[in-house]
Amino acid sequence: MQAVPIGIVTVSDRASSGDYVDRGGPAVTRWLEAALSSSWSACTRVVPDEIPAIRRAIEELCDSESCALVITTGGTGPAPRDVTPEATEAACSRMLPGFGELMRAVSLKSVPTAILSRQTAGVRGRSLVMNLPGNPSAIADCLAAVFAAVPYAIELIGGPRLETNPTVVQAFRPPHAR
Amino acid sequence: MQAVPIGIVTVSDRASSGDYVDRGGPAVTRWLEAALSSSWSACTRVVPDEIPAIRRAIEELCDSESCALVITTGGTGPAPRDVTPEATEAACSRMLPGFGELMRAVSLKSVPTAILSRQTAGVRGRSLVMNLPGNPSAIADCLAAVFAAVPYAIELIGGPRLETNPTVVQAFRPPHAR
Amino acid sequence: MQAVPIGIVTVSDRASSGDYVDRGGPAVTRWLEAALSSSWSACTRVVPDEIPAIRRAIEELCDSESCALVITTGGTGPAPRDVTPEATEAACSRMLPGFGELMRAVSLKSVPTAILSRQTAGVRGRSLVMNLPGNPSAIADCLAAVFAAVPYAIELIGGPRLETNPTVVQAFRPPHAR
Repeated sequence: MQAVPIGIVTVSDRASSGDYVDRGGPAVTRWLEAALSSSWSACTRVVPDEIPAIRRAIEELCDSESCALVITTGGTGPAPRDVTPEATEAACSRMLPGFGELMRAVSLKSVPTAILSRQTAGVRGRSLVMNLPGNPSAIADCLAAVFAAVPYAIELIGGPRLETNPTVVQAFRPPHAR
Repeated sequence: MQAVPIGIVTVSDRASSGDYVDRGGPAVTRWLEAALSSSWSACTRVVPDEIPAIRRAIEELCDSESCALVITTGGTGPAPRDVTPEATEAACSRMLPGFGELMRAVSLKSVPTAILSRQTAGVRGRSLVMNLPGNPSAIADCLAAVFAAVPYAIELIGGPRLETNPTVVQAFRPPHAR
Repeated sequence: MQAVPIGIVTVSDRASSGDYVDRGGPAVTRWLEAALSSSWSACTRVVPDEIPAIRRAIEELCDSESCALVITTGGTGPAPRDVTPEATEAACSRMLPGFGELMRAVSLKSVPTAILSRQTAGVRGRSLVMNLPGNPSAIADCLAAVFAAVPYAIELIGGPRLETNPTVVQAFRPPHAR
């Protein structure tokens, strides 16, 4: 079976200019390495907090790299430079509000400022695109909260099958899709 | 008292072509029969997963059939053919995001893939329009979660009074509206 | 330290025409008086349920009065005259959906009709704008639910520092921002 490409986009002015070591992207990669039992390969990008750059990264990962899943990290807050949700919405044909709702609800158990996150998820062609916060511990909380729904979401939009390691996350599929 | 018309729209390519027996529409009807104690009549439609057909069904049920409530079932997922939320938004003048939030939160107790639902609710004139999933057991869960707010919502937008059977659902109205 | 201006906009046809004593605005003021330990001053407005009037009040409070925070009360329901969320969205450059989600979830513990509220929050320049319901007891519940995140939100968008009285609400800031 061919490795499924997964895009990981770090959105950070400081990481993209080299002033700062990217911690968000590696945290996403480590989580996926533990969670996925089927073959996959990481396509990583580091871009500044600019709508055109983020949007282009998402679109290339979906369209040219055929990523089944594109995960962004960073740029989801209320500050003027935070524009990842806008870029995601521009790249997607439809949005899935349940992802942001659940990630905020879960993060709220750790910090009251979780409500400031504008993180969302959407669909571009056969790719699922989702925003995560930049903070590595929040990344793990968010992925743990939503990932059980991710493999079936990818299948519903025409993407490949991902298998998970049930000690980390148990992918859910309705009986007729197992 | 005159029977209040309630629209029930099954959205399904297979049900509308006759390849499949509609189970969603009858599940909505059965739930309403148990829940409503005042007189009502069902206006049912079965339409394919196409925005114009769904939108037209909603608009006719609101405008020509004077339905106080229009409930759709099916077509709320992330798959390309799922377009019920888009058609609903096109037919409504304003959206009520709290319905989708609560229905997803409640469905999440049964299945992690509840976050994939894009179901929503909105207002068209004096009619309340709400999306339910296609799965009969999820239909009952969603109706049980939100229906206590439905009669008062209909009154706020100028519709008729519905009475509920309190052993199924206790309609809530603030003291000044009782 | 200079007093931080905070805008409080009562949205009500009846209060603005003098037919009704405004109870929402004073309830917001009382809550803030108890919750804030740093110096602030109230800029109050009472406007009818009309998009242009509400929008203009929000914009003036942000732009001319330099309010760090603008809180509206009333006009968030589904009734045709309820247009505060529309006016808020028109005045803001970006929305923060987590506020509305959390306020509805908290209000839902008191009344099932909480899902009918369309209340939201957003950012205009360096000002945070948030909608509250009109009912005084719901106002306190909503402020108690979200206010821990408000001071840091204001700092992230370039506004001044607010200090809270920890017996009412403990403002949260991540370690690097304390």
